[in-house]
Amino acid sequence: MKKKISLLLIAAFAMFAADAAVPHPIVLPDIDGYKTLKGDMHIHTVFSDGTVWPTTRVEEAVMEGLDVIAITDHVDTRLQKYTNKGLFRCDRNESYRIAAAAGKAADVLVIHGGEISRGMPPGHWNALFIDDNDAIAAAAEKYDDNHVKAMRAGLKEARRQGAFTVWNHPHWERQAQNETRWYDEHTHLYDEGYMHGIEIYNGFCGYSPEAHRWAIDHGCALISGTDTHKPLFLNIDYANGMHRPVTLIFAKERTLEGVREALDSRRTAVLADEHVYGSEELIGELFSALFEVSDIKYSEKKVTFKVVNRSSVPLFLSKAPGSEQVVFPRDMIVRPFECMTMTIYGLDNKKPIGLDSFDVNFYVNNFLTEPDKPLVHSIHFAFP
Amino acid sequence: MKKKISLLLIAAFAMFAADAAVPHPIVLPDIDGYKTLKGDMHIHTVFSDGTVWPTTRVEEAVMEGLDVIAITDHVDTRLQKYTNKGLFRCDRNESYRIAAAAGKAADVLVIHGGEISRGMPPGHWNALFIDDNDAIAAAAEKYDDNHVKAMRAGLKEARRQGAFTVWNHPHWERQAQNETRWYDEHTHLYDEGYMHGIEIYNGFCGYSPEAHRWAIDHGCALISGTDTHKPLFLNIDYANGMHRPVTLIFAKERTLEGVREALDSRRTAVLADEHVYGSEELIGELFSALFEVSDIKYSEKKVTFKVVNRSSVPLFLSKAPGSEQVVFPRDMIVRPFECMTMTIYGLDNKKPIGLDSFDVNFYVNNFLTEPDKPLVHSIHFAFP
Amino acid sequence: MKKKISLLLIAAFAMFAADAAVPHPIVLPDIDGYKTLKGDMHIHTVFSDGTVWPTTRVEEAVMEGLDVIAITDHVDTRLQKYTNKGLFRCDRNESYRIAAAAGKAADVLVIHGGEISRGMPPGHWNALFIDDNDAIAAAAEKYDDNHVKAMRAGLKEARRQGAFTVWNHPHWERQAQNETRWYDEHTHLYDEGYMHGIEIYNGFCGYSPEAHRWAIDHGCALISGTDTHKPLFLNIDYANGMHRPVTLIFAKERTLEGVREALDSRRTAVLADEHVYGSEELIGELFSALFEVSDIKYSEKKVTFKVVNRSSVPLFLSKAPGSEQVVFPRDMIVRPFECMTMTIYGLDNKKPIGLDSFDVNFYVNNFLTEPDKPLVHSIHFAFP
Amino acid sequence: MKKKISLLLIAAFAMFAADAAVPHPIVLPDIDGYKTLKGDMHIHTVFSDGTVWPTTRVEEAVMEGLDVIAITDHVDTRLQKYTNKGLFRCDRNESYRIAAAAGKAADVLVIHGGEISRGMPPGHWNALFIDDNDAIAAAAEKYDDNHVKAMRAGLKEARRQGAFTVWNHPHWERQAQNETRWYDEHTHLYDEGYMHGIEIYNGFCGYSPEAHRWAIDHGCALISGTDTHKPLFLNIDYANGMHRPVTLIFAKERTLEGVREALDSRRTAVLADEHVYGSEELIGELFSALFEVSDIKYSEKKVTFKVVNRSSVPLFLSKAPGSEQVVFPRDMIVRPFECMTMTIYGLDNKKPIGLDSFDVNFYVNNFLTEPDKPLVHSIHFAFP
Repeated sequence: MKKKISLLLIAAFAMFAADAAVPHPIVLPDIDGYKTLKGDMHIHTVFSDGTVWPTTRVEEAVMEGLDVIAITDHVDTRLQKYTNKGLFRCDRNESYRIAAAAGKAADVLVIHGGEISRGMPPGHWNALFIDDNDAIAAAAEKYDDNHVKAMRAGLKEARRQGAFTVWNHPHWERQAQNETRWYDEHTHLYDEGYMHGIEIYNGFCGYSPEAHRWAIDHGCALISGTDTHKPLFLNIDYANGMHRPVTLIFAKERTLEGVREALDSRRTAVLADEHVYGSEELIGELFSALFEVSDIKYSEKKVTFKVVNRSSVPLFLSKAPGSEQVVFPRDMIVRPFECMTMTIYGLDNKKPIGLDSFDVNFYVNNFLTEPDKPLVHSIHFAFP
Repeated sequence: MKKKISLLLIAAFAMFAADAAVPHPIVLPDIDGYKTLKGDMHIHTVFSDGTVWPTTRVEEAVMEGLDVIAITDHVDTRLQKYTNKGLFRCDRNESYRIAAAAGKAADVLVIHGGEISRGMPPGHWNALFIDDNDAIAAAAEKYDDNHVKAMRAGLKEARRQGAFTVWNHPHWERQAQNETRWYDEHTHLYDEGYMHGIEIYNGFCGYSPEAHRWAIDHGCALISGTDTHKPLFLNIDYANGMHRPVTLIFAKERTLEGVREALDSRRTAVLADEHVYGSEELIGELFSALFEVSDIKYSEKKVTFKVVNRSSVPLFLSKAPGSEQVVFPRDMIVRPFECMTMTIYGLDNKKPIGLDSFDVNFYVNNFLTEPDKPLVHSIHFAFP
Repeated sequence: MKKKISLLLIAAFAMFAADAAVPHPIVLPDIDGYKTLKGDMHIHTVFSDGTVWPTTRVEEAVMEGLDVIAITDHVDTRLQKYTNKGLFRCDRNESYRIAAAAGKAADVLVIHGGEISRGMPPGHWNALFIDDNDAIAAAAEKYDDNHVKAMRAGLKEARRQGAFTVWNHPHWERQAQNETRWYDEHTHLYDEGYMHGIEIYNGFCGYSPEAHRWAIDHGCALISGTDTHKPLFLNIDYANGMHRPVTLIFAKERTLEGVREALDSRRTAVLADEHVYGSEELIGELFSALFEVSDIKYSEKKVTFKVVNRSSVPLFLSKAPGSEQVVFPRDMIVRPFECMTMTIYGLDNKKPIGLDSFDVNFYVNNFLTEPDKPLVHSIHFAFP
Repeated sequence: MKKKISLLLIAAFAMFAADAAVPHPIVLPDIDGYKTLKGDMHIHTVFSDGTVWPTTRVEEAVMEGLDVIAITDHVDTRLQKYTNKGLFRCDRNESYRIAAAAGKAADVLVIHGGEISRGMPPGHWNALFIDDNDAIAAAAEKYDDNHVKAMRAGLKEARRQGAFTVWNHPHWERQAQNETRWYDEHTHLYDEGYMHGIEIYNGFCGYSPEAHRWAIDHGCALISGTDTHKPLFLNIDYANGMHRPVTLIFAKERTLEGVREALDSRRTAVLADEHVYGSEELIGELFSALFEVSDIKYSEKKVTFKVVNRSSVPLFLSKAPGSEQVVFPRDMIVRPFECMTMTIYGLDNKKPIGLDSFDVNFYVNNFLTEPDKPLVHSIHFAFP
């Protein structure tokens, strides 16, 4: 009898012995000719005003299946609070160095970056693929009371180092209280060749249709950054299937060089809060790769087929013009990894379809090729 | 040593011994003077063409914390497949009887209903609070080839029984392929006093702005129904925090009489796919009850306060006109049960607020008082 | 401005347009020479005393990634309640026929089965791979007051049809109140060649160490069945990562013939409530296939390596004898799909390991080769 | 038509605007006369070798509903890496000060603590309710090569400050490779009055039956600590309902004084990995408070009643001696917040119960009053 009791006893096991978390991966297929890399281009650590050690940023990247992260600590601030008081001495590249070492072990690419923060205009800018944040800080600090001159000097030094530079969160309410503005200074910085990318989605400010429009019109890369300061879990509701926003980078190879080439070639898109923003070409190919149609069966009264969503992104579909002769759901959700059977009927439900071929056209309402303009996807059916 | 091993052994326990599931409750506060009841007004079982026994519908209601469900089996179909072949004999009220007995034990109110399904116009209609589906079916069946006459006869018999009748899914693609239409017959049925409610959200067809508009313009109750045929879990992604759509019924008491009085008085709203649809008065009060503001702290440079979302509904907020003099996030999500601290700044981030009092106005983008018209909520602040 | 508001509006989409649920797959690798099929060998539907239509059982199987299910409705009961009153007429193979048609469309193998339920002894038995439940019921019903004779007759008829027969839940408290007993009748049925398998885990009764022991000692297949009557979601907490219990079938091919051959060859194991029960050979191979070790790095003071759990089953590990010269966690959990880095030290934390080679031995506490006896797994390390 | 499209557009909202995460609360009722406080008594930050800023520890506490946390940074280590090189200057109480300020704003009690880490014996010890870690470090550092003398000196200084001192993780594999040992030095420290508590569960090492036994035999408080160094989310699988281990403190009031009084009076228990460890009196009362029985219905053939689990802890129950005359499930799980109906039968399923009164006795297999000894709970039934 004693034996029976002991059999039923359950031991409490050590929960922390492992070094990493259960994965919550962001899943997307590659597209023709390119790998679909997932990156976070805007990240802080305890070395500026963030609240986690740089190694944590790599562990978080592993958890969500990211390929690349940029460490973009402010070239000012927190440990700097101690620094300012002379309590801490360390250069501005330490967080990158620590993250890069951890990234190497965990197979996460780490971009050396930094954020230059000034009043508006010009606001905040990220410099990616740099060598030395101390030199950038030094260049900018010469003009402490002049935001414009400070930023120009910082960006100039960043360019000297070969940086890819990004205008961050043009829509941040602290610098764009009631509307998102493009100032003359932005024309200047664009004309000078500094505006390689624009952050159209930022963790704190969300999506900006204005920034999206500007990026398209100026040929800038679409960039997303969490701008995360805290552990991501305190902001992202993973338990309910949410994910951090990411920049999608369509790269020829999964290396830092591959990332840089893709950024320079503007092959990026943004996935944020269940939305994808990008050019019709890129996100159209992405949608085609993740939305799998199979098992088409034709009969006189209906056509059935299977659909699988090969991604962690839910798809919000609705009927688009050009399919008026056939009947299918006017709106529907295809959830992550969902496999379902769809049916196409002829008009009035009872009539035979009576067509040799037809198109099923639908809006993918959460894939936006421009502000307010959803991707249209078509499936062509031809009776055998 | 043997003892130590046995200590670490974990036994596999029986998972099915219990009679009900872990709860996934839909949580909403009551409003002033009324209880906020959650109901599903459109439900099928195996007794028509559904795939679950009526008791399951009560267990599902318990799992999500519903107060009331309507059993609305078609007054035709599945076991009827057997019936038609003479293999099954049972009246059309059996599913209600079985559900009502289970509801009594589980404290879930069960409405005796039925669905009359015909071609468009008039389409499908639900009769709630009826006595006998056999009589309704018999009345309608007299006009088998005439949808209009059949429905009129069915609704007339339902009225004789004291029914509350609802036009179901005017936007169902099988009957409204490319647009949602109001036919002359609907004017007739409305004029005859049959259109007490309109289903503006249906599990299969989603939300219809047209139906929403018609319900407002004709003084009909806003109704939502899952129209569920399968076990709900096969359609609702509970593991990621989703819930079934529900009709919110603001009732004086939690009884069938209370539900009927609220329906007759048009005190309903719809909660579906994280959206709430209803009159400014009702959903405004609901929002005020669930959005709790506390701990306001005034200083010269900023005002901080706590916000708690006392519901299972995420809130999608964005800045609305009338608060241009102060700075706060231009858009944000307050997730279910989230507690957060918000900060209001003066303009340009560094200036003191410099106002004796001000309003924080925001759109609640997922609370719609009309199609395309979000609720506006204000918080008034006055420096002490 | 109006445009901006409408942009922020979010529409509620149809949640039920799809035909199947978001997957919650049970994931296990194949082993050398065999596919690891997942099956549920004990399932009821509305055609006996269950509460769902047979098609639902196939949809649930798809959701969890099952390969095979057995429809084992009682050869008596619910629609039978109607049947007994003469209200329903249909043979006892209808639920199988409906499920088999749905299984064909969804690529789920469906076994034609039935459950013969009598008092103890002999209790309840499942007959799998039969042709006609009516004949089995008829054979058993001749001896209505004699459980022993009724079961013998039923099993005899099942054998005539070529059945694989299983003693269900020997530990069901309604028939084994305070202890699990093997009666003389079970010796008789075993000797007569009827006891091909024993249900060592049942959804309602959990795991039985006695049944496990008897199955081992008598060379019977280890079988698990949910014995599910309701929709599975009402019993299984999928939102917290739980799964239904399954019989693991190591088959040469994914066909009904392959399943039968594996059952006949006793190549089965049981996965239930995060435990795996099976022979050392089979579950040892399964563990080796799912527990991936890579990236071993040797240094004087420590050895590090990566571990990945390639399954949806958490692993509860603790140090076993034979590794006293090296230091590693005395107990730990490796969660589903978790990837982690482990470190082995020499004794006393600071000493070099000082060994040419060594073994890391650990108990897999939730993989049981016998009652109370966990699997032992070894990783061999040899300094280069 | 354009309008309709824009209606369906969904905007991506800002996910980071909020200051705290969706709650994953640990829920337990109070017991008679005491509040059930949840505490984590062992926590590191970036100020020693942790990877998060002290404020994060308060945010994590809020997320799980903890009442009290102890900041117990090593009185050596990480920023100390910089410190040792003369790069960082700051006293050893800075992490407490930062956490305490955040705790005050968030209503989380923060204990000033520190960890003294030495070789075994004596191993690692926590000092709680201290004033100055610098003085403790200084006292210990005098004996850098002598673990015993260093610890004695550190604990002596901690006592001078009024500390409550705890022996941490006696079973840590790095200091207790193959068995958990009590050294003579522990007898000495116990005799000197330093061993107020023993950590019987530690995040990295799990549960120690030896430590549990020693704590009981020596009248020490049962203590649990995560020993967390990283953000908790990287170790705890919240998405699947897991929680961090906590010390349960049965306090007269929710203040630091109340916590200290409860520790001094040994009114603690441990909740870790779904297990509760504590005295029969305390965890018996806790179980009675969370396991609610209602709606008892007596009939001749069966007794039914409702059971609700008013906690976030699953309950693993199995039949215990003393209830042989009645039939109920021999083992079962009652999941967090689950509400279920149970049925008691007479023997042999068909007989009337035939008793005036009876007890339902069961083991609560995951509530352990001693190592290997589960709590027994009884429900008394008396026919009216």
